[in-house]
Amino acid sequence: MTRLRIGIIGASGYSGIELTRILAQHPHVELALLTSDRWQGLTAAAKLGLSGPAASLEYQSPPTPALLTRADGSNRHWSTCDVIFLATSVEVSLALIPSLVEEIATVIDLSGAFRFPTAELFARAYGQPHSAPALLPTAVYGLPELDRKGLRGARLVANPGCYATAGALALAPLVSDDLCLPDSLVIDAASGVTGAGRKGTEELSFAEVDGDFRAYRVLRHQHTPEIAQTLSRLSPAVRSSGQSLRPSFTAHLLPLRRGILATAHARLRPSIGEEAVRAAFVHNYADEPFVRLLPTPDDVGLKQVLGSNRCHLSFAVDHDEAIVVASLDNLVKGAAGQAVQNLNAVMGWPETTGLDELRGFYP
Amino acid sequence: MTRLRIGIIGASGYSGIELTRILAQHPHVELALLTSDRWQGLTAAAKLGLSGPAASLEYQSPPTPALLTRADGSNRHWSTCDVIFLATSVEVSLALIPSLVEEIATVIDLSGAFRFPTAELFARAYGQPHSAPALLPTAVYGLPELDRKGLRGARLVANPGCYATAGALALAPLVSDDLCLPDSLVIDAASGVTGAGRKGTEELSFAEVDGDFRAYRVLRHQHTPEIAQTLSRLSPAVRSSGQSLRPSFTAHLLPLRRGILATAHARLRPSIGEEAVRAAFVHNYADEPFVRLLPTPDDVGLKQVLGSNRCHLSFAVDHDEAIVVASLDNLVKGAAGQAVQNLNAVMGWPETTGLDELRGFYP
Amino acid sequence: MTRLRIGIIGASGYSGIELTRILAQHPHVELALLTSDRWQGLTAAAKLGLSGPAASLEYQSPPTPALLTRADGSNRHWSTCDVIFLATSVEVSLALIPSLVEEIATVIDLSGAFRFPTAELFARAYGQPHSAPALLPTAVYGLPELDRKGLRGARLVANPGCYATAGALALAPLVSDDLCLPDSLVIDAASGVTGAGRKGTEELSFAEVDGDFRAYRVLRHQHTPEIAQTLSRLSPAVRSSGQSLRPSFTAHLLPLRRGILATAHARLRPSIGEEAVRAAFVHNYADEPFVRLLPTPDDVGLKQVLGSNRCHLSFAVDHDEAIVVASLDNLVKGAAGQAVQNLNAVMGWPETTGLDELRGFYP
Amino acid sequence: MTRLRIGIIGASGYSGIELTRILAQHPHVELALLTSDRWQGLTAAAKLGLSGPAASLEYQSPPTPALLTRADGSNRHWSTCDVIFLATSVEVSLALIPSLVEEIATVIDLSGAFRFPTAELFARAYGQPHSAPALLPTAVYGLPELDRKGLRGARLVANPGCYATAGALALAPLVSDDLCLPDSLVIDAASGVTGAGRKGTEELSFAEVDGDFRAYRVLRHQHTPEIAQTLSRLSPAVRSSGQSLRPSFTAHLLPLRRGILATAHARLRPSIGEEAVRAAFVHNYADEPFVRLLPTPDDVGLKQVLGSNRCHLSFAVDHDEAIVVASLDNLVKGAAGQAVQNLNAVMGWPETTGLDELRGFYP
Repeated sequence: MTRLRIGIIGASGYSGIELTRILAQHPHVELALLTSDRWQGLTAAAKLGLSGPAASLEYQSPPTPALLTRADGSNRHWSTCDVIFLATSVEVSLALIPSLVEEIATVIDLSGAFRFPTAELFARAYGQPHSAPALLPTAVYGLPELDRKGLRGARLVANPGCYATAGALALAPLVSDDLCLPDSLVIDAASGVTGAGRKGTEELSFAEVDGDFRAYRVLRHQHTPEIAQTLSRLSPAVRSSGQSLRPSFTAHLLPLRRGILATAHARLRPSIGEEAVRAAFVHNYADEPFVRLLPTPDDVGLKQVLGSNRCHLSFAVDHDEAIVVASLDNLVKGAAGQAVQNLNAVMGWPETTGLDELRGFYP
Repeated sequence: MTRLRIGIIGASGYSGIELTRILAQHPHVELALLTSDRWQGLTAAAKLGLSGPAASLEYQSPPTPALLTRADGSNRHWSTCDVIFLATSVEVSLALIPSLVEEIATVIDLSGAFRFPTAELFARAYGQPHSAPALLPTAVYGLPELDRKGLRGARLVANPGCYATAGALALAPLVSDDLCLPDSLVIDAASGVTGAGRKGTEELSFAEVDGDFRAYRVLRHQHTPEIAQTLSRLSPAVRSSGQSLRPSFTAHLLPLRRGILATAHARLRPSIGEEAVRAAFVHNYADEPFVRLLPTPDDVGLKQVLGSNRCHLSFAVDHDEAIVVASLDNLVKGAAGQAVQNLNAVMGWPETTGLDELRGFYP
Repeated sequence: MTRLRIGIIGASGYSGIELTRILAQHPHVELALLTSDRWQGLTAAAKLGLSGPAASLEYQSPPTPALLTRADGSNRHWSTCDVIFLATSVEVSLALIPSLVEEIATVIDLSGAFRFPTAELFARAYGQPHSAPALLPTAVYGLPELDRKGLRGARLVANPGCYATAGALALAPLVSDDLCLPDSLVIDAASGVTGAGRKGTEELSFAEVDGDFRAYRVLRHQHTPEIAQTLSRLSPAVRSSGQSLRPSFTAHLLPLRRGILATAHARLRPSIGEEAVRAAFVHNYADEPFVRLLPTPDDVGLKQVLGSNRCHLSFAVDHDEAIVVASLDNLVKGAAGQAVQNLNAVMGWPETTGLDELRGFYP
Repeated sequence: MTRLRIGIIGASGYSGIELTRILAQHPHVELALLTSDRWQGLTAAAKLGLSGPAASLEYQSPPTPALLTRADGSNRHWSTCDVIFLATSVEVSLALIPSLVEEIATVIDLSGAFRFPTAELFARAYGQPHSAPALLPTAVYGLPELDRKGLRGARLVANPGCYATAGALALAPLVSDDLCLPDSLVIDAASGVTGAGRKGTEELSFAEVDGDFRAYRVLRHQHTPEIAQTLSRLSPAVRSSGQSLRPSFTAHLLPLRRGILATAHARLRPSIGEEAVRAAFVHNYADEPFVRLLPTPDDVGLKQVLGSNRCHLSFAVDHDEAIVVASLDNLVKGAAGQAVQNLNAVMGWPETTGLDELRGFYP
């Protein structure tokens, strides 16, 4: 089989690095392009210690919108790629994707630029207008465990947010099986700092973050409407009532490099007990290779998922009170790993291709 | 003024150390007795670097129940103390306090042994019978900001749990002003490891805790009924209905030595808006020297309260959704500092005596 | 090619876990036996998230000396293994290896039990007598970059200590090329806590280790004579004079899970300058796949080697003063990875087999 | 006694914050001026939680060189101060101090601007010319334990560097008692990140520093000549030979907020043994309130000195090899605390004034 030629734009950010490492060992692809605003001319071997064919690949300067719109034909390094991943900010993704989708068979965007179906919803979540609203209906939201049917052959995939993946996976069984009161959903989640990307600000300096723990963007986090949308799509109650779900979501910053833990709360409908909840988790996730249901919520931690594409979860029930705890690595299942899982789904390969071998990192 | 003679039982645990450091500089007291199961014969100068009169105090072996009941009169070192603090486990407090209260003017217990008014409530929370039920009605629960009236002259003070202090301070204004739906309360809180005491278990080893974050004792944490009881006492809705509050509380272990952050959620009653919430926080806490209301929940962190007896808090409101974030140092406002604040209240001294000078530790 | 059948004794310790993960993906071997004192009956999938053939392997109880000496034939689970790794303490390795070497083709011991050629040297380093002195001359010390000639076909391999690997790799070029004064060697090295193994002691509890940094076993660390022996074997000055080297080595405990950094100091012989030093590093390590020489000592850190089998190093020279900094992952190049590298050398496979694919873990 | 009026320039940096907290409780001073480039108009109560008279003090904008040279008389807020501390960069200190010393009775500079007696030595250490060379001979280097005689009444005090304090205190007894070979001194020291000041760079971001440990500025750290100078002044061998000492010093960055540990190595002169070394430490430090000699180097850690002005140290000797380990809090004994100790020495107050009450922060 000819290997698919892959480009990564934003390859020196933390998600871009993880993506590079995973794809460098993926059996069906070949890394053809890495762009970076800081490592131009250096090799993947030098910066990441890669061996094998990707080792000698040199980082290129990132494509500019002018380059992409052919105003300048001098360095169209991306044009031979079959698939391009963007591990970039919303702003960069918005600037590049309209041109890229015209030339490249599949574009997988890790930013939040194409996660909502309308420009209005995007604007409400991100506080800025959307510059390519026509593309929005063409994008497929890629959280395979909850809906993989549109992914096969997709041209533009919106990779979910890290919190949105954890929060939605935690509550999806209760919501899709209609076991809980729609207005009772509360999610408190905490993430390591790499969720904020790679940057040098005093706020994210070691001296400030170490020893601290705090909530941020309280009641105005952009992942709140993303979780609401994902869960609403699954909810029979929403389908019958036309209302949407409004989970209360709060993000917290952990003094850690990696990992997300989400603690989700719901009030169960009358007479729904632990067995119904267990049945919902089992039938929703039994065949999912990356979701693992653990015996109790106390068993769910970050260390066992770090460096893997897994999501660990478990639940507890007391009367009408249900608590679900879910964990994942924000750079893998919350970003790069899920993006590769989406590539696999687009191509019709087993979703675990190139991901099952991730060995984790413990302790 | 003659200085009050103070004894600390359990002086080498983390709360006991903090208590020793605070009381060593309290202007109205004199440290007369420190007991420890590991530092016997060593001085407070050697172990804690104390200077001043407490420096030469030597740690004694802990009193045993036999000693206390006068079966053995050989080493009644505690008997000249005016006040004894117990920074001990529930089991040790239960074994010692019945004898101590007969001889010592005031006993301040940092364990959970005397926080409930009945043996039945204790047994439900701690999963063990209470061996001194007759004393339970005599104990005063010492969370001064919420109820200080029974503290003056109290003989036995039950110092609150660290999570219970954070959770109750966060929600008390909403509950006591009857602004929220009684069955909507959810609290997710996270604590540094010193909340678990001083011990060498693999579970609390550095290799396991570092890099991890997890919920624990989900739906069976002993601080849940303590928070429920404290908030229920404040609630007009509970008083009129006879029902009690059942807040959903989940504890999480942070990869940190110290600090608790509680994120509390409530649904507001119809037509209650941000202004009513603000008014509730202001009038409940305006005169409280240790509670500081910050502009937004994003401002509330651990670093600004570490080493101080303060509780920082703030709230945000969106429609009927209210989120309150509160932080404190689990060893100070969550344990030793609050115990000294309670001593001050018992003696009728300003509550800030010996506590205002705590300089904090930042960064 | 038939896969080699591998057993790991001590598979639930931190080195044992790393060994399991690496060997589970090694192309020429098959995991046949994992023993553990705590995970008996559980699977490698459940504990480590392994997929593939090793996933369903169940941890067995560790072999006892009685079992090994055939006093009891009931559970000779190890006897079908071609190679056995011991990720155990010195005591356990001493108890098991004399029997194991009679039945098993190759035994690779990660403990310090067989790193010295004589019982006297062992006793001096470990403060205990050696119970199998006759085996000592048969053991091959496995630090391939410095001496790989005895490894091919070896029956008993002594895997080096983590500090000893870092310290010896740092100074070997200067010593073997005779560039420095033999009595001028000083090494300060610092390791994450997993170097101390998996245990629950108050000393290694999170509350004690976090925020701290300290030297330990100063002037009595067991890796000091191991480094001295390794460097002495390389030294022309030692060969000509008959004296041995006495590097001063000090170990420090980092508040980290993994990683070792060694800072080594030497006084250069007269007229030896930076170019001679560079030449020594280049010709000693140019063909070593796991050693990477970086431009300056400031470039050498832990993060770029974590999760890989690499050793990063660099040096600086000022007049007669040379400083070499080396880093490695104590669980990989300092333990499990080097053990697999030794297996490869024993079998005559490329030393990078199964190790090159280790993707690292950054950030 | 009238309280001395104190100004702090650079009061929002980490050393400036520590200085503010210490001086706010110093019995003989009154905080009169705090300047900050980021907190202008905010109060010390709001930013640091201070209570007491300093609580309502508002941060002012920093003085500019123009202001200081009276080109602009509009805001000469510093002019009523008796003492000014500069917790600023070398550049800012050089710009301000020439004017300040003309108006202010005592200036205490925490930067490296005035630690060398000549412009040439400064230029060699800092790689830039000195703009006020005439002032250099007037500055008194303030490391009281090693030389306090010039401090009484000093007009300009150069507060030592944090590493220089730790390194010099570790080796001073061996050097001043002439027990070791002058060319054998090696110091490896490691510091928490606050030693680098308060800044937002990617290099000091949490994601980069956490999990890492590395040497930096190897063989070109500016504290190396400072240590050399301090030790050379104490050395009889230097006095008799005219040569100076050239200790080899290497700095390392710890993944910690605070604390420095220095491990120092020396070869003892023939026939010098452990007793002579012990005697040297005892007679040099027996009367020093802030230096504590511990039983073994393994006892010296960061946690017991954090938040205090103490330096802990201990040594071990094996034949002619001596190792000394010293620890201190880089923001206290390594910066702000030592600056206050120097103020006390300038004024003739007991050096412990306002410092003895620092309670430390453990765990």
